[in-house]
Amino acid sequence: MKVTIKDVAERAGISVTTVSLVLNGRPSRIREETKEAVRKAAEELGYVPSQVALGLKTKRSHTIGLIVSDIRNTFYSSLAIGIEAECRRNGWNVMLCNSGDHADREEEYIRVLDNKGADGIILGMTSAGGQKHAEKEAEYLASTGMPFVLLDRTVISEHSNAVIADHTLGGYLATKYLLECGHSRIACVTGSDYLEGSKSRLEGYKRALREYGVAYDDSLVVRGDYNYEGAFAAVEALAGKDFTALFAFNDMMTYAAVNALKKQGRTVPEDVSVIGYDDSFIAEIHDVPLTMIRQPLYRMGEAAARMLIDIIDGRRAQPATEEFIPELIIRNSVRDIHEA
Amino acid sequence: MKVTIKDVAERAGISVTTVSLVLNGRPSRIREETKEAVRKAAEELGYVPSQVALGLKTKRSHTIGLIVSDIRNTFYSSLAIGIEAECRRNGWNVMLCNSGDHADREEEYIRVLDNKGADGIILGMTSAGGQKHAEKEAEYLASTGMPFVLLDRTVISEHSNAVIADHTLGGYLATKYLLECGHSRIACVTGSDYLEGSKSRLEGYKRALREYGVAYDDSLVVRGDYNYEGAFAAVEALAGKDFTALFAFNDMMTYAAVNALKKQGRTVPEDVSVIGYDDSFIAEIHDVPLTMIRQPLYRMGEAAARMLIDIIDGRRAQPATEEFIPELIIRNSVRDIHEA
Repeated sequence: MKVTIKDVAERAGISVTTVSLVLNGRPSRIREETKEAVRKAAEELGYVPSQVALGLKTKRSHTIGLIVSDIRNTFYSSLAIGIEAECRRNGWNVMLCNSGDHADREEEYIRVLDNKGADGIILGMTSAGGQKHAEKEAEYLASTGMPFVLLDRTVISEHSNAVIADHTLGGYLATKYLLECGHSRIACVTGSDYLEGSKSRLEGYKRALREYGVAYDDSLVVRGDYNYEGAFAAVEALAGKDFTALFAFNDMMTYAAVNALKKQGRTVPEDVSVIGYDDSFIAEIHDVPLTMIRQPLYRMGEAAARMLIDIIDGRRAQPATEEFIPELIIRNSVRDIHEA
Repeated sequence: MKVTIKDVAERAGISVTTVSLVLNGRPSRIREETKEAVRKAAEELGYVPSQVALGLKTKRSHTIGLIVSDIRNTFYSSLAIGIEAECRRNGWNVMLCNSGDHADREEEYIRVLDNKGADGIILGMTSAGGQKHAEKEAEYLASTGMPFVLLDRTVISEHSNAVIADHTLGGYLATKYLLECGHSRIACVTGSDYLEGSKSRLEGYKRALREYGVAYDDSLVVRGDYNYEGAFAAVEALAGKDFTALFAFNDMMTYAAVNALKKQGRTVPEDVSVIGYDDSFIAEIHDVPLTMIRQPLYRMGEAAARMLIDIIDGRRAQPATEEFIPELIIRNSVRDIHEA
């Protein structure tokens, strides 16, 4: 029976991800003694590194796979446009895979791309599977030996390449702007708890509150799921609560918040100021043009493609995380209540 | 010098498309005497049919290319989701190419997909190049010998496979609904003149007017370009005109129309009733939930993928056009003025 990377991992008592990185000769910050333990276990078991097998395939497909949760979400389509532009400039093709936010399909696509000889993967991980799934998947992805770059929603380890936005700063900028406009009772509609992006935005929210000497009030923070329906329900649950401003962690939830507030008879920005996140085109043409934190999605997409191509071409020695800075786009959905 | 399909076409005095269909042995309704003339010209020039060259490549890539104008447009992303789902069910992959509504990039992508050994193409043709370009491109696509399916915006000839929606019916249903609600002064924001879809919707608009004995008034019909900005300007040009209802030919133009009317101090639906086309998710969450003509985009995407796979697998003998039926989705943007 063929000795697998998993057998080596068990023998050495080390994670599959680490074993894969060592055996595939991928750049990493793994300690030399761990590397030695992996090599020893591999030798004892007679493991043939997949690197050797891969070496037989001399021909590149010049194709990368892009796996996203939902291409209909402008967040992902904007990233896709940037990825595609950068790939095209370099003569690479993008194979688009849509997981529909199903964790199992994501894994299936990784397998398919591996089998079809894609040279690498850019993965916008789904939020549906939870933390456990995300870690398992990152491990599986590493075990294929295919170079990969994680996009935004990430389970970042010291071994992963990733392109992310500074969500803490984004959360901070949004909250600070509301505080500067005189608001101190600020409701918050977050994403799923285990998502890096959502956790960090909440961190930024708290940091701004501290800076302005405003006590954190847990009852004003409700959890959404980055979708319209979930956020609508979350904001309905805030009915009767005392707040003058609301911060929603993505754009779909921002539209939901405005509509849910309207249903409660509260208008934006007269009764409640609203600030959102992502800034897709709808924010600008919305009935109340929406103040938003904008992420440089197109440039992030370009960077992810460039990073992956560099890894594939061996031009990148160390795993790296490239971080982008969000900016505040002021429109009409936040009212300065100092004037009132 | 290598004899090309173009040389054969010139020699025979027959279009490149027709010559390609004959020489690649593709199913068509071309008359036998035309076929004979093509074969004769090919023989005289010593043309080696690309079919022979293609025959050497025995291995299918099981990958199709999908070229769309702008994946950020929910019209295309909804189609893409359907295409992708059907392909996945059949073990095929989709390579997404985004032309950014640039006619030259579309041609470049056709070339790239051809070179990379895609088994076929689904093409959502751009509106940017105009009629001449569209015809030239369809001809080029045919000359590659790759099976292809045209998606919606089409230059349909008797030789092309296409998945379309019945735009005439859509235009008719929208206009008829406005007429039933008592409107007779109905403004119209169309797409580009040469686009099949726009022409047909206008045809449906006129048909409904005739049926209800309302005279067609050219001054109420303004041309948009399926984008927000163009439609906004077009509706601004309608300022001062006497109308109680407006029909916009796609969703971006519908949002633009509502905002442009608002800028003129006319509210929807109190002053002007608005009906739109496409029905992406925004229509439902819009400040005024919008009455729309909905096209079954997901099912159209599935059908296009199925059609292309059938052609590639030789299960489809004749070129065909599969037509889908749009439906009226009633929300709050149209007012019945009989009550007034």
